[in-house]
Amino acid sequence: MIVVLKQNSDERQLEELRNWLKKKNIMIQESTGESCSIWGLVGDTSELDGDVIASMDVVESVKRIQEPYKKVNRKFHQQDTVISVKNTVIGGDDLTVIAGPCSIESEEQIVAIAKAVKNSGATLLRGGAFKPRTSPYSFQGMGTEGLKLLKIAGKESGLPIVTEIMDVTQLPLFEDVDVIQVGARNMQNFNLLKELGSIHKPILLKRGMQATYEEFLMSAEHIMSGGNEQVILCERGIRTFETYTRNTLDLTAIPALKKLSHLPVIADPSHGTGKADLVPSMAMAAVAAGADGVMIEVHNDPEHAWSDGSQSIRTETFDTLNRKMIALHSLVRE
Amino acid sequence: MIVVLKQNSDERQLEELRNWLKKKNIMIQESTGESCSIWGLVGDTSELDGDVIASMDVVESVKRIQEPYKKVNRKFHQQDTVISVKNTVIGGDDLTVIAGPCSIESEEQIVAIAKAVKNSGATLLRGGAFKPRTSPYSFQGMGTEGLKLLKIAGKESGLPIVTEIMDVTQLPLFEDVDVIQVGARNMQNFNLLKELGSIHKPILLKRGMQATYEEFLMSAEHIMSGGNEQVILCERGIRTFETYTRNTLDLTAIPALKKLSHLPVIADPSHGTGKADLVPSMAMAAVAAGADGVMIEVHNDPEHAWSDGSQSIRTETFDTLNRKMIALHSLVRE
Amino acid sequence: MIVVLKQNSDERQLEELRNWLKKKNIMIQESTGESCSIWGLVGDTSELDGDVIASMDVVESVKRIQEPYKKVNRKFHQQDTVISVKNTVIGGDDLTVIAGPCSIESEEQIVAIAKAVKNSGATLLRGGAFKPRTSPYSFQGMGTEGLKLLKIAGKESGLPIVTEIMDVTQLPLFEDVDVIQVGARNMQNFNLLKELGSIHKPILLKRGMQATYEEFLMSAEHIMSGGNEQVILCERGIRTFETYTRNTLDLTAIPALKKLSHLPVIADPSHGTGKADLVPSMAMAAVAAGADGVMIEVHNDPEHAWSDGSQSIRTETFDTLNRKMIALHSLVRE
Amino acid sequence: MIVVLKQNSDERQLEELRNWLKKKNIMIQESTGESCSIWGLVGDTSELDGDVIASMDVVESVKRIQEPYKKVNRKFHQQDTVISVKNTVIGGDDLTVIAGPCSIESEEQIVAIAKAVKNSGATLLRGGAFKPRTSPYSFQGMGTEGLKLLKIAGKESGLPIVTEIMDVTQLPLFEDVDVIQVGARNMQNFNLLKELGSIHKPILLKRGMQATYEEFLMSAEHIMSGGNEQVILCERGIRTFETYTRNTLDLTAIPALKKLSHLPVIADPSHGTGKADLVPSMAMAAVAAGADGVMIEVHNDPEHAWSDGSQSIRTETFDTLNRKMIALHSLVRE
Repeated sequence: MIVVLKQNSDERQLEELRNWLKKKNIMIQESTGESCSIWGLVGDTSELDGDVIASMDVVESVKRIQEPYKKVNRKFHQQDTVISVKNTVIGGDDLTVIAGPCSIESEEQIVAIAKAVKNSGATLLRGGAFKPRTSPYSFQGMGTEGLKLLKIAGKESGLPIVTEIMDVTQLPLFEDVDVIQVGARNMQNFNLLKELGSIHKPILLKRGMQATYEEFLMSAEHIMSGGNEQVILCERGIRTFETYTRNTLDLTAIPALKKLSHLPVIADPSHGTGKADLVPSMAMAAVAAGADGVMIEVHNDPEHAWSDGSQSIRTETFDTLNRKMIALHSLVRE
Repeated sequence: MIVVLKQNSDERQLEELRNWLKKKNIMIQESTGESCSIWGLVGDTSELDGDVIASMDVVESVKRIQEPYKKVNRKFHQQDTVISVKNTVIGGDDLTVIAGPCSIESEEQIVAIAKAVKNSGATLLRGGAFKPRTSPYSFQGMGTEGLKLLKIAGKESGLPIVTEIMDVTQLPLFEDVDVIQVGARNMQNFNLLKELGSIHKPILLKRGMQATYEEFLMSAEHIMSGGNEQVILCERGIRTFETYTRNTLDLTAIPALKKLSHLPVIADPSHGTGKADLVPSMAMAAVAAGADGVMIEVHNDPEHAWSDGSQSIRTETFDTLNRKMIALHSLVRE
Repeated sequence: MIVVLKQNSDERQLEELRNWLKKKNIMIQESTGESCSIWGLVGDTSELDGDVIASMDVVESVKRIQEPYKKVNRKFHQQDTVISVKNTVIGGDDLTVIAGPCSIESEEQIVAIAKAVKNSGATLLRGGAFKPRTSPYSFQGMGTEGLKLLKIAGKESGLPIVTEIMDVTQLPLFEDVDVIQVGARNMQNFNLLKELGSIHKPILLKRGMQATYEEFLMSAEHIMSGGNEQVILCERGIRTFETYTRNTLDLTAIPALKKLSHLPVIADPSHGTGKADLVPSMAMAAVAAGADGVMIEVHNDPEHAWSDGSQSIRTETFDTLNRKMIALHSLVRE
Repeated sequence: MIVVLKQNSDERQLEELRNWLKKKNIMIQESTGESCSIWGLVGDTSELDGDVIASMDVVESVKRIQEPYKKVNRKFHQQDTVISVKNTVIGGDDLTVIAGPCSIESEEQIVAIAKAVKNSGATLLRGGAFKPRTSPYSFQGMGTEGLKLLKIAGKESGLPIVTEIMDVTQLPLFEDVDVIQVGARNMQNFNLLKELGSIHKPILLKRGMQATYEEFLMSAEHIMSGGNEQVILCERGIRTFETYTRNTLDLTAIPALKKLSHLPVIADPSHGTGKADLVPSMAMAAVAAGADGVMIEVHNDPEHAWSDGSQSIRTETFDTLNRKMIALHSLVRE
């Protein structure tokens, strides 16, 4: 961290700042120039609050040099993290493909989709039981009952299951869930992150719609600093001024996050675009960008396609797409 | 809600859609033109999911005409909502001024600030006990102990108290808190909103950093639909590309939200700018824009100003500002 | 266009609006319901200003159904536009690869890069002669002299050349330029677009940093409505809150624009990310998303790499990348 | 400017960088620590391109300390700039109020509005002759004929006139215009800015919809570095995700720009909101935030209100508003 001091600063206040920093085990590398003085702070600056220092009377500005995250930082952990989930791994040499319906609607539906996506090569099954909904009047998901059906479908298809937790109080219900998903709206639900840091289960953390890469990684740090090192990062689109798509899928996040961190990174083109006809292109693009996997909403209801979410693709479309993604993944990794 | 149909749509699918809508007690006003056919949906469309309809094979697009919120909607509740909190009201003829420190640090600090802001004319006392922090390594607030000190300061100054809840599990701790604040990051923590809808206490709901006016109002609707009609809306800055300020305070939200809803609307220029020297101008601007109140961070520590958040103003600055705001409020309401 | 009328509107004002619309050759499909009345406007509504109608006393809101663009619209021109430029085509079956330095610096530099990228398979040569610079104190490009050198390099390598025009007064200088580029900052320089609509030369139109897809297409419409139908759309990143990258490359624009329009769409990952190490991944992602081509900054100066723009890749990196892109392009088009 | 070097950098490359900087008259303040080395660059760093340095092999990152603008910087010009325009001043003790129609439509219209706003206390007359329009099919303004009518209205009312230039080729037509406006879409039309830097006439520069404060000030620097020091900054709304308003008026820009620069700052709540009913509140808020003036669209057509732009207010509304703004301006300046 670099502290740029105001010109003609009060020496007494500078001394106070020096002492305050020393107490925090920070060494100061002072460099006094004609027009301004600069302090380089050496030590574990990840616990220093740059805003607080910037607000001091004698300080002109503060520039952070080191990333504020440690456990997620690739600098201190060169090797890619690989996470085992039952019979599959996330972050390894193979492409992870998480597929399933937006919402679990019935045993028949979830089991049929599970089998179909398994046949097409999916490696994990997703399905929403608790749905975060903007409107209190919309369907909020099947809840506990949906969770049961998802577990049945997981067993019948042999796929590990992924589903979203809404709140720390739901944790006991997720004991048999293989990967717990934290939704974009909960990316900075710090109490939830803390709790998930104390369990031994992979966490699929979705990027908030307005979160910077740094904030996203800091949320992963919240989980890892609690002791749970099994975190999967998921880019799912950010909010911009564009209204044609629901969100703007930021695929640059993939190579960027993989450079900054050792954690596996996947993309969700279904939420990222909100439009089924754009999903295959963006899933391919995510794989080409270097994603460790993708997460895709799939429905199986050609007769009532209109009752599915506008962003889900049909099982047949998924089948074709998955074959293409696997070929592409080989080409990229060559 | 208006449904624009695709040309040459399958009549069987149209019939299916007609039946589906009828089951939901929606009447259809069909209008068939040469180039396209339009259905006007009449009835309680707030429970219809526009995205689902838009995804149907026969549908070209869906245009919502009515707002999806009911309880917060000024159309169905012309009069301004006025909320009584002990010896003061929010949303009435007088300006509400909520002031206090960013974090509660000690009894001495919080009591001194409480008395100072009370003397300057503040009507409620704020202070953070549980702090949502981006970094797991930053100070997370004094917690339960802080809450106790805040209550003491409230009693000693005679000011009602406002403080932030982080999680539904903390609710029992907030029994003696006069106004419960929901932070920007929790604006779409729907389980928390639902719980707060079942209690009888005013809720100060902060706008999420990426929330549209409609989403903000829908979060208020989550609370009100549970039965708690005492909701105060707070604009606190949105995220844009600008980096000079921490957020971009969107003051247009004030007249816009007051037009769309009957709920009181206040502004938080401290978080909205992140810079103490911009706070007085933006507090004045908020009052001029028609805000029912403002929420301002104040510190009392001239000797150690540097240990305060960069966005807190001194008690003396607050004193001058408050007198100006009251004069301005009269001028605006003339 | 759908006009939703206010309840109990003044009949005289409605009549006035009816007459105003009739004069513009718009037919009205009236549909009067219990709670609201809706008019469907039939005819060429692309010349109607929705905002003006929305501001009328009797109007509640206006919803546009048809796209406001005609010439660029795929609905009225199903087939992909293919643009011939000397010995190559843009928008056809082959991948277009435009490569070259950020700025032209010397004959030696531009000729060497031209030959190198030609050898690696580039199909057009880019190079900046006039540089739009945020600061008046930065290098503004070699200007007319640079243009001459670019033409020499084009001849020596056999590659058609692409370079940016800054202003309508420069047009005479661009006679021997094969493709004229309009930069992001000029996307809504309507006088320039109008002038470019009257010439017979391909225009590479870059998306403005804050332009929606619709606005981008409307700028292409400005050129096409003047008679010049050779327009290439280029996604080059939008501005968001993220600061790690210079811009956020919006790759969803590729399938979206190709669906809405028949024009070729290419991507510029160099400007889109601003970071050389992210360029290869994002170039691959663009091709996977269905781009007709990519535009990439390449430098040839290993000894003084530091004097090149931070977003240019080395000729060797480009060579490897191009081979991979061509393989990927085949896989995607299968 | 601070340059953070990579660890274990090649000494030959460092020496090369040292020499390159020396040639640019930059002195280096080297500070070598255990974990990293930092160079403080002293001298006129406004001509250094931080991105170029950041791209060098030996450089980890670059942090700018000084603003890249000089002429517009308050640090080097403490006193407020006051600009005289005929019988009025902009930036002085009085509030500047620029009012008039969106587009000039006829002599009758522009003269009537000019007289009305003059009577209500406006200090300058605005009116669009050349209109930048997203669609090539919309009304593009009356052009040269409109300019003539505006001059007539200026003379008849005694108000100085302000109108927008679209292109450098139009400059000869603007000889009798008192203040030349540069629209948001032209904020980075650098050739136009350069040309305006060489004339002796006040320039009203509007902020681009996606421009940061720094970029906005750099565009003013383009004009001032050419010798024209009469620049007025105008905040007119930025683009965000909100769709209820056309733009998001960023009023924090007012105190921020006044702190960073000595130039007068005004606000345009008409374009900033796009909704007539929000204009009065936001005009008041702009004055409360410390604006030197406001720019407001006014129409005079009660019978055909619907044919006016949705963001223009009536002359009577303007009359009431102006009286309130003047009272508020006194209160703020007390």
